[in-house]
Amino acid sequence: MIGIDPGLATTGYALLDQRSGESSAALITSGIIRTNPKWTKSARLGVIFRELVDLIKRYKPDELAVETQFIAKNVKAAMSVSEVRAAALIAASNNEIPVWEITPREVKEAITGWGNAPKEQVQLMLTAQINSGEIPSSLDASDAVAIGLTAYTLRRYETIFNQETNR
Amino acid sequence: MIGIDPGLATTGYALLDQRSGESSAALITSGIIRTNPKWTKSARLGVIFRELVDLIKRYKPDELAVETQFIAKNVKAAMSVSEVRAAALIAASNNEIPVWEITPREVKEAITGWGNAPKEQVQLMLTAQINSGEIPSSLDASDAVAIGLTAYTLRRYETIFNQETNR
Repeated sequence: MIGIDPGLATTGYALLDQRSGESSAALITSGIIRTNPKWTKSARLGVIFRELVDLIKRYKPDELAVETQFIAKNVKAAMSVSEVRAAALIAASNNEIPVWEITPREVKEAITGWGNAPKEQVQLMLTAQINSGEIPSSLDASDAVAIGLTAYTLRRYETIFNQETNR
Repeated sequence: MIGIDPGLATTGYALLDQRSGESSAALITSGIIRTNPKWTKSARLGVIFRELVDLIKRYKPDELAVETQFIAKNVKAAMSVSEVRAAALIAASNNEIPVWEITPREVKEAITGWGNAPKEQVQLMLTAQINSGEIPSSLDASDAVAIGLTAYTLRRYETIFNQETNR
């Protein structure tokens, strides 16, 4: 699983691996992609796209999870994040890996059990769900860890739900 | 010049060629990229991206013009268009061609001389600025023609302005 926290200036990413049946995951690597505000937007999106493609080719994640907001107070910021999210979605499509679009609320619920939990709470509770690797100190990268873990949680619920309905 | 009118269901494109010193342009080809609403968003964006990359590789435009809105009444629609616009911006970056981001108002002003002109007026006045090739009947494709022509107009003004300020 590659988790992605999209942002034009800083995009966080985290590569995770969860064995089936386990509820915690190994954090293989995480980091951030930074772009220079002096570059054109096209150049900045291009850099993010190519870095994500490189990560996918290198670590071969089987799924991609990216944060999505469906409502926005700041339209301009929402449009900018949407452009970066598209870089992740296109990278996934080019490499034929399925995508989870995860809302901030789903992250909070999956990690802390409470949809209105403060960011710090999410940070604190990440450690319990990682069985190897170190939570990054950068907020953008640790958000990417949380997004990836949330996709695993949603997948687990989906599996349970499908088993129950298939009985 | 490749002009692009971004949309998740239908993206219009137009390949234009304007000789230096001329104010009208040849319309080499135009068309639309359609995606199926049943596909995942990632798949739809991937198709649009790869089709645009194919067009760029085939026609080798030296510049790309894409419509951009900086304000939006419908946030959800604006976010969706932003994702498609990103596909165009990344395709341009991967092929190292410069980008014009053009607002709907700039299109109206450049084509009709009036920023609040109705869409039909823009359509009607396109013909005068094309010296070969036929204006497509599809609105999405003819919008792409208008977007490309507007970039040429802005480039011409910019050249005049630079010449004047360099005196």
